[in-house]
Amino acid sequence: MSATATQQYREFDRDSVQVFAAPFVGGTARSAEEIGDGNLNRVFRVWGDGLSVVVKQAVPYLKIVGSSWPLTRHRARIESDACVEHRKLVPGFVPDVLHFDEDLSAIVFEDLRGYSTWRDLLVARTATPGVAERAAAYSAGVLLGTSHLTLDSRARKEMRQRFAYSELCLVTEDLVFTAPYTDSPSNRFDEEIADVARALRCDRSLRTAAAELRFAFKTRDEALVHGDLHTGSVLVGPHDAKVIDLEFAFFGPFGFDPGLLLANLALSRIAHEASGNDRYAAVVDGCAELFWDTFADECRRRWRPTEPWYSRFLTSLLADAARFAGLEMIRRIVGLAHVADIDGLPLPTRTAAQRNALAGGRALVTGPPCANFEELWLRATQEETFV
Amino acid sequence: MSATATQQYREFDRDSVQVFAAPFVGGTARSAEEIGDGNLNRVFRVWGDGLSVVVKQAVPYLKIVGSSWPLTRHRARIESDACVEHRKLVPGFVPDVLHFDEDLSAIVFEDLRGYSTWRDLLVARTATPGVAERAAAYSAGVLLGTSHLTLDSRARKEMRQRFAYSELCLVTEDLVFTAPYTDSPSNRFDEEIADVARALRCDRSLRTAAAELRFAFKTRDEALVHGDLHTGSVLVGPHDAKVIDLEFAFFGPFGFDPGLLLANLALSRIAHEASGNDRYAAVVDGCAELFWDTFADECRRRWRPTEPWYSRFLTSLLADAARFAGLEMIRRIVGLAHVADIDGLPLPTRTAAQRNALAGGRALVTGPPCANFEELWLRATQEETFV
Repeated sequence: MSATATQQYREFDRDSVQVFAAPFVGGTARSAEEIGDGNLNRVFRVWGDGLSVVVKQAVPYLKIVGSSWPLTRHRARIESDACVEHRKLVPGFVPDVLHFDEDLSAIVFEDLRGYSTWRDLLVARTATPGVAERAAAYSAGVLLGTSHLTLDSRARKEMRQRFAYSELCLVTEDLVFTAPYTDSPSNRFDEEIADVARALRCDRSLRTAAAELRFAFKTRDEALVHGDLHTGSVLVGPHDAKVIDLEFAFFGPFGFDPGLLLANLALSRIAHEASGNDRYAAVVDGCAELFWDTFADECRRRWRPTEPWYSRFLTSLLADAARFAGLEMIRRIVGLAHVADIDGLPLPTRTAAQRNALAGGRALVTGPPCANFEELWLRATQEETFV
Repeated sequence: MSATATQQYREFDRDSVQVFAAPFVGGTARSAEEIGDGNLNRVFRVWGDGLSVVVKQAVPYLKIVGSSWPLTRHRARIESDACVEHRKLVPGFVPDVLHFDEDLSAIVFEDLRGYSTWRDLLVARTATPGVAERAAAYSAGVLLGTSHLTLDSRARKEMRQRFAYSELCLVTEDLVFTAPYTDSPSNRFDEEIADVARALRCDRSLRTAAAELRFAFKTRDEALVHGDLHTGSVLVGPHDAKVIDLEFAFFGPFGFDPGLLLANLALSRIAHEASGNDRYAAVVDGCAELFWDTFADECRRRWRPTEPWYSRFLTSLLADAARFAGLEMIRRIVGLAHVADIDGLPLPTRTAAQRNALAGGRALVTGPPCANFEELWLRATQEETFV
């Protein structure tokens, strides 16, 4: 890979990351700042003379509240490889990988300076024209492009071996499909909703559906999915938007990525509705609808004409996406990882939003299959309260 | 594996197979007879003094009418390994593998002398008590035992890598899911039903469903399925029944094996009904019902109590099985590989049976999801004619 000798792994600090990144900022690094939270990765911006790059390094643990979860650093390889594969399908929709160092588990990315996460923009009630369409084009492009619908068996088999069910898939499996329906110590929720958070554990129809969906998550070998496509994984710049954080990539079900993204838009919508921001809530409605319409159009555009089952494909994908979305909405309220859209609300608005989100999530998971986008969105964002 | 030096592959003849098998029949072989048809494998019975074994050798081609389809010999490894894995789950339901030679692609099996195929017994209108139950216990045992429902992720991942989508899966993919709905030169059908055989190619709902099911066959990474579980793959002896021919084994959908088996029972039922053998047709009805009831019971017995979604699991498995069964019924009438149950009938009975089978197959594939076994069986064996 590189001409330098094998280096032993060590966590970067601001000095060592400058030495590492120097070749990619013109030969000499001038400064470095840490820009990540360090829970799962160390992320640094490194400056040379006028040039900058981002260095993302996997650490051998996942920090969670009060403890840490040991992990291998293989996810850096997964992220680097997934960026390369996805970029081939949707050029410009994923940041450019300038270098990958296996020993240091470090990726050097182009620096997306001036970009904000879509989530932050949604929280700030900023208009984000074109972003829903970009996210949809990315998602449809990578799903169809890594499935049997477009890839030949040999190429897909090779790719399948590199992106097996990973350690981070096990993290998702636990946090999305299991923990919220048990008394897992990783669960976190406000005291105001402790009654409903605990009720989830006794809700047989929810628990049953969550177990069934967990099985689908583990066995539907359909496409190289992003695996963590929430609104914080979409970076929005002045002229475009890019999808980041591909370390959760694996061969999973078509409906997972669009389901997660729609769930996170629904949480934004619910937060604004509960806050009385009706106009911006309607903006989020528009984002969700544009996301789905663009996704469906892009699937059709990339569909192989010899495969005649497009309408069945899209119908079952939407029904699956709705159910995954419901689980995502629930775990973002009562599980380990919350969303700023709702956690940032003042009481008692926050509590109202949380109860709405749980009601929407449960309606998606336990109801009959959603037949179209309107039904999905209405169920997700209905102004009802979990009782 | 063995202490002998690596040997170059050569197809066995009656002499060389005796030399090869001598260690397994007491040191000296006395005679050998070829007992297979040689389309996909050479199969010999080799005798020593009072002892006999069966030697099955993969050949590097699949003979089909008028030509041959090149294949690697890797399927011998798959069959040997699958026998070992499946025997662990259902001891005694699969023949014992005495030896496997990778270089010669040859497996030495215990000799099941005096056994007949279930298909031959069904054709001869012989009662086969206990056989449906054995086939069902085998199928449920291996499906649940190689799925996430009982196996931990690490063990399953290791197994998954050894049984990837294989060359023989590609053969099934073509012969079951594709060829019957195109003008493939491998299709074979009686002139008397040429009209309906050709009509299949223009039946949009059938073609659409076949493509959708082909995708499920290729992507549902649910369990190490047998992959070719028809009534000719079940050997019936005086005191038990065993399942053979595991070279098609791969990680596929739960519904595939039970679907194929029920389809082959339905073809038997249709043949007897068309021939006026009403009493034996009712016997076959009983076999099918016993198969499904035992299968469902055995799934329940092996179900992990922490997985709460058993009834959903069985409902969706049955619905999938019904659709795979429909495709199997159709391809056994118009595709490359037929069944003796129907091909052995005199005209015009044969034609009537063929048209009934096509009608039953289409009803299974294109109808709404089957909700229970009775619905599946009624649709498969309805006395209607394909028009």
